[in-house]
Amino acid sequence: MSSGLLMRALRHMSGQTAKCGKKYEPLSMSRSLRDITPEAYSTLRSIMIQMERASSLGNSMQLTDKESAANKVLMTAKSKELEKGFLNPSKFTPGQHIFQVLKKVERSPLFGLLKTMPKGGILHAHDTALCSTEFLIGLTYRENLWICTADEGCRAIAFRFSKSKPTMKAMEECNWEPMADFRERRGEENVKKYLQSRFSMYPFSSFLSNNQAWNQFMSIFILLDGLLLYAPIWAEYYYNALTEMYADGVQYLELRSLLPDLYCLDGTPLKMTDTVAIYKSETERFMANNPDFIGARLIYAPLRGVEPKVVDEYVQKCIALKKEFPTFLTGFDLVGQEELGRPLIDFVEPLLKMPEDINFYFHCGETNWFGTSIDENLIDAILLGTKRIGHGYAIVKHPVAIEMVKKLDIAIEVCPVSNQVLQLGQDYRNHPAAMLIANDVPIVIASDDPSFWRATPLTHDFYFAFLGIAPFSADLKLLKHLAISSIRYSGLTDEEKSKGMDKWQKQWNKWIESLTKAA
Amino acid sequence: MSSGLLMRALRHMSGQTAKCGKKYEPLSMSRSLRDITPEAYSTLRSIMIQMERASSLGNSMQLTDKESAANKVLMTAKSKELEKGFLNPSKFTPGQHIFQVLKKVERSPLFGLLKTMPKGGILHAHDTALCSTEFLIGLTYRENLWICTADEGCRAIAFRFSKSKPTMKAMEECNWEPMADFRERRGEENVKKYLQSRFSMYPFSSFLSNNQAWNQFMSIFILLDGLLLYAPIWAEYYYNALTEMYADGVQYLELRSLLPDLYCLDGTPLKMTDTVAIYKSETERFMANNPDFIGARLIYAPLRGVEPKVVDEYVQKCIALKKEFPTFLTGFDLVGQEELGRPLIDFVEPLLKMPEDINFYFHCGETNWFGTSIDENLIDAILLGTKRIGHGYAIVKHPVAIEMVKKLDIAIEVCPVSNQVLQLGQDYRNHPAAMLIANDVPIVIASDDPSFWRATPLTHDFYFAFLGIAPFSADLKLLKHLAISSIRYSGLTDEEKSKGMDKWQKQWNKWIESLTKAA
Repeated sequence: MSSGLLMRALRHMSGQTAKCGKKYEPLSMSRSLRDITPEAYSTLRSIMIQMERASSLGNSMQLTDKESAANKVLMTAKSKELEKGFLNPSKFTPGQHIFQVLKKVERSPLFGLLKTMPKGGILHAHDTALCSTEFLIGLTYRENLWICTADEGCRAIAFRFSKSKPTMKAMEECNWEPMADFRERRGEENVKKYLQSRFSMYPFSSFLSNNQAWNQFMSIFILLDGLLLYAPIWAEYYYNALTEMYADGVQYLELRSLLPDLYCLDGTPLKMTDTVAIYKSETERFMANNPDFIGARLIYAPLRGVEPKVVDEYVQKCIALKKEFPTFLTGFDLVGQEELGRPLIDFVEPLLKMPEDINFYFHCGETNWFGTSIDENLIDAILLGTKRIGHGYAIVKHPVAIEMVKKLDIAIEVCPVSNQVLQLGQDYRNHPAAMLIANDVPIVIASDDPSFWRATPLTHDFYFAFLGIAPFSADLKLLKHLAISSIRYSGLTDEEKSKGMDKWQKQWNKWIESLTKAA
Repeated sequence: MSSGLLMRALRHMSGQTAKCGKKYEPLSMSRSLRDITPEAYSTLRSIMIQMERASSLGNSMQLTDKESAANKVLMTAKSKELEKGFLNPSKFTPGQHIFQVLKKVERSPLFGLLKTMPKGGILHAHDTALCSTEFLIGLTYRENLWICTADEGCRAIAFRFSKSKPTMKAMEECNWEPMADFRERRGEENVKKYLQSRFSMYPFSSFLSNNQAWNQFMSIFILLDGLLLYAPIWAEYYYNALTEMYADGVQYLELRSLLPDLYCLDGTPLKMTDTVAIYKSETERFMANNPDFIGARLIYAPLRGVEPKVVDEYVQKCIALKKEFPTFLTGFDLVGQEELGRPLIDFVEPLLKMPEDINFYFHCGETNWFGTSIDENLIDAILLGTKRIGHGYAIVKHPVAIEMVKKLDIAIEVCPVSNQVLQLGQDYRNHPAAMLIANDVPIVIASDDPSFWRATPLTHDFYFAFLGIAPFSADLKLLKHLAISSIRYSGLTDEEKSKGMDKWQKQWNKWIESLTKAA
């Protein structure tokens, strides 16, 4: 009925009669609504605003009485920050770079509420970019660690655990010395400060281009390899990542990993299946210690900048892994800077050979170059049957792709902070996910590589999404929808999802309870 | 047929049979397309890409053989810049602030082609922000000009033409002296440099917030008043604006003006109708001297930051003006920073009293605050029957509004450079007009206040729209569509449009001819 009135008004405004089915008349024929009364105007206006709200993401979510009470607490905190920001936009943190406001954000009452919120799962995160900088620094105190430096010790090139001086060649010319000696020689505080900077993208909040940001980004992965690929540390790093996530209100993880070959202290390399086995057993250990944790699944995600025949090998490896880890391995993806790697179309032949029980979760459209082969990756990902889309930053420029992801129920993994740090966008208020929310396109919020921006495992991304990207009116319904979506769009089976939902619901109820008590 | 195949594929991917009309099944039921052959895949893929291209703005435009040849020249120039930018994004001018690349852009071969292109009309530009800085500096050498300065002559507060020392109070405390004395005292070069900076937003390519940018922006308007409101200068300024526009490939102007009261040398104020009369007679003089110029129309656009009863007065004034200038006055708008002014909803009662023969051309949605009363201005503008939307930066976040502007054939006046300088967005590749182009939403390209960014009257905006905002594949069809749209969505009558189109076509044909000769 509402929509009928609106359509009648539309016809009136365009000079048509109600019966007339023909195309709209040219501009000069159109008439305005100016002959209606202010009261009728007001009715029409609220219908339009209701129509917009009703068709936005999460709006159909129901709230219990308790949740409605909790919502008031949440919205009071949100409104305060919004109103302050509206009066003085230079104080609005989602209008700035995370590096400039990280601590300020963490002091915000809204952030505090979101931190304790059970947010469901992280469906987009990468293997060696998960843990806090403090944890990484701690690892550099471990026994048998060597560092390889260049420029008279001013530049760290590589790490390696070894009983004696490593013989391994690093990416660049450098000199190996025991980490302990290096630390003593350079001074503990200096080394700490240096590593803090080297393990993250700080302090560069503005690069000249996204290519430069990606260079810095990749260099962190490269440096971390020798530190983290030592098998015992690999296990510990991952276990710690789960610990940090769980403390941040995360109960599930779907991890993308290159699945590198790990090494032992004597330099012996392990096999790819050992890497997966470590992930699996550490997940089980973590779940035994934390029964409310839902679990973790693995997405094998090797580098995309390769020849098509290499993708053929990836597919074979993935099939073998799926045989050995039928439940734990959920899918396949390709990673690395999309703009410099090859487009998916180059790999269609090998990718079509992937068996149906291995899901695709492709990175695609992580670009602001419109109408390129990178955008077209969106089309290929969809046609290849991707279950979710990693980033999909460019999808809003592709109405046919948008229609298809809605019809096929493919969720977009939105990683707000990552997009800012890797120079796709600056102000969160202009992030394309606003359009996805407005158009009821399925999304989940993820953090990609929180370690590299010293962010919490998921809360910062939720904060910027909720305060900066979503509309003023977005409330607990959206948050609940996002949390539930992270389980709904996971690679879990229906039965696992149902059990997972129960675990989430239990923690959610507690959180709602705590919010209502805070009122 | 194409679309039918796609829909069958969609049903296949979602696990439905062709006959089944029910809702899509949950995720777990869906299947991928992996059992199809690479050839069938390739067909499906090109259908999807064709569907997207076909549904984008300007794609239905036909090109003659000559135009197709010219298109090749154009696309060669465009591709060169795109490819260079893609390899090194830090060299891609639409990824940067116009203040940093103004001269570089002007040296670009693509810019050269766009400069000579007959671009149709400018449908969004403001009265005292049209002319080049050089022209403004030239005006400061005129006889009888006084300047009022503060801070020991370091800060210009106001100008005034007068035989003797002005008695007029400026906005701030300041001292009047003849401009010639001031120039001699401070040194000609110093004064020139100072005024160059004071007459534009340079050098501030980054403000802390859009509010600060708006402060600087408004301060230029205020300073210029005393210089430009002197009746003979007002006429000359406007005539010069038309001259600069025409030289920039512009054949029509729809000017928004506050219609301030002008003054004579003895200080006598003129009436509002005199201001309009000057515009009208200068337009006629310009057309007599340049028979290929299509003309100009006026939009009365007073300030929005007022009480509703003032809008009642605006409406009465507008009705009176329409009686006196039935053809020249085409419509009404409200101006000033939308975020600080009142929302349109406050003015609905007086605005509904506007007679049907006065069109609305409302500024609205010039914001990146999502879900505020500023966004809601979009709804009110549409319901009030606006013929075009000024800026509409936020409209992509409002799917119902998008649907309505498409159905009602309301064009969005996109002003790319203005949005960047006034801090709504940074990188042109993220400008929301990309989504409007992708979704075939009617737009025109306009320049708003080119004087304040030292840009050409329209070419810079076309350059950033074509190279930075539109997709790689956008070509002469889009440019032709944009030029034609600027006449189609103008306030001219159908007969005037038809005559205007003839004048544009004549120049267009010449331009196409010159391009094909360059090949």
